[in-house]
Amino acid sequence: MATSPSESPPAYLAALLAPYAAAPPATRPFVTLTFAQSLDGKIAGAGGAQLPLSGPESMRMTHWLRTLHDAILVGIGTALNDDPQLNTRHLPAGAVARAPRPVVLDSRLRLPPTCKLLRNHAAGAGRRPWVVAAPDADSAWQARKDALEAAGARVLLLPAGAEAHDPAAMLALLRAEGIRSVMVEGGARVIASLFGALTCIDTVLVTTAPRLVGGAGVGYSVGQLNAARFRVVETRLEGQDSVVALVAERDGAA
Amino acid sequence: MATSPSESPPAYLAALLAPYAAAPPATRPFVTLTFAQSLDGKIAGAGGAQLPLSGPESMRMTHWLRTLHDAILVGIGTALNDDPQLNTRHLPAGAVARAPRPVVLDSRLRLPPTCKLLRNHAAGAGRRPWVVAAPDADSAWQARKDALEAAGARVLLLPAGAEAHDPAAMLALLRAEGIRSVMVEGGARVIASLFGALTCIDTVLVTTAPRLVGGAGVGYSVGQLNAARFRVVETRLEGQDSVVALVAERDGAA
Repeated sequence: MATSPSESPPAYLAALLAPYAAAPPATRPFVTLTFAQSLDGKIAGAGGAQLPLSGPESMRMTHWLRTLHDAILVGIGTALNDDPQLNTRHLPAGAVARAPRPVVLDSRLRLPPTCKLLRNHAAGAGRRPWVVAAPDADSAWQARKDALEAAGARVLLLPAGAEAHDPAAMLALLRAEGIRSVMVEGGARVIASLFGALTCIDTVLVTTAPRLVGGAGVGYSVGQLNAARFRVVETRLEGQDSVVALVAERDGAA
Repeated sequence: MATSPSESPPAYLAALLAPYAAAPPATRPFVTLTFAQSLDGKIAGAGGAQLPLSGPESMRMTHWLRTLHDAILVGIGTALNDDPQLNTRHLPAGAVARAPRPVVLDSRLRLPPTCKLLRNHAAGAGRRPWVVAAPDADSAWQARKDALEAAGARVLLLPAGAEAHDPAAMLALLRAEGIRSVMVEGGARVIASLFGALTCIDTVLVTTAPRLVGGAGVGYSVGQLNAARFRVVETRLEGQDSVVALVAERDGAA
């Protein structure tokens, strides 16, 4: 099938992942952390409310980036607040077949069986979502697990005793399940846990919308040592938004 | 004298101020707040240390913007940390004649008489700096005032009893002295006081450098009501930096 330019991801996005396509890390997937922020560095409104931060051009860029990853991951906070679809619906039909696996990090299994991810999958319009949880002997937890599985989810369990906010166990689990690259889209807690760990991020792609949100919005913080590991490889405009891509220095821990 | 394109400010900057050139506010100058931030929203390093955030292209843009204002203002924290020159040295010679008046907001007169602003002026290479202070009966304060004036500064006194962190009195003083437009370049305390006041800013111009600084850096916060007043009028790249210009809705208080 011939591929027109609009049927392929922008070259600068493909270039971000190209060095790793042949040799993904052994103990975790290649990790792209991506999020949209306001000019004053807020990623959500007061109380975590979803903000319309991405314009149509940067939204499309994000969907292209999704097609370059095996999986796309969000935390349960984002899943509850936004009820996201995590698909590639803003792309041409030819690209939709490359939609990544949706993964929700949801240690206590709070994801509703009626969420869009599960309804889309049941309707044949989305890949089966994975839910990463911590094992629990509680009967209510077991009932929630049964309900999610009945609705079509696959529940993956972290090793007993894994630290809830340490992303290493979650990433190792995904790698063991064959996920070679994951795009992490938030929310605030997942971003904080990745920026807090020293060597769990390979690429950061930040979209900045030209608006101020104010002090009640939810910000984020980058660990000092982590911040020093990244260098810029791309700055560009997508509509009114700016997009910055940073890559981390490789390290032995990869 | 013929003016080549490189001898004039970029059109988008001139357009920001054009609506106000004929009719500046009556009780304060037209206020442009401008600062450079890292991608993660830091305007200074740990402890207020100066960060190299602007690339050469956005630095040049900032100097062009200076030529469009009657005055350029920084707080004493920035004056002490950075020892800035507040001139237009990155521009062609023809533009240097339009350098604005340097103003330091320095309520307790901590500015050293040996600072670059005063040394440049004494050497004939810069306009006479103004220092805005709060009146004080203390003899040490008077000695500092005498030393600054001997070094070439003009000391302007806020009205007795003016709130130290309320920018309205400072702006009214500048307007009474004939300043019709002022470009405020920081630092963190001045930015906070302007963003905290509801109607003291007409334009915000933010340069974002594509680097992460980390949680120990100095951030800033925009008041909730203030944030809602601004709308974007320009997003562009200057080298690797992005530049966003926002304008405030006009209000009766102007």
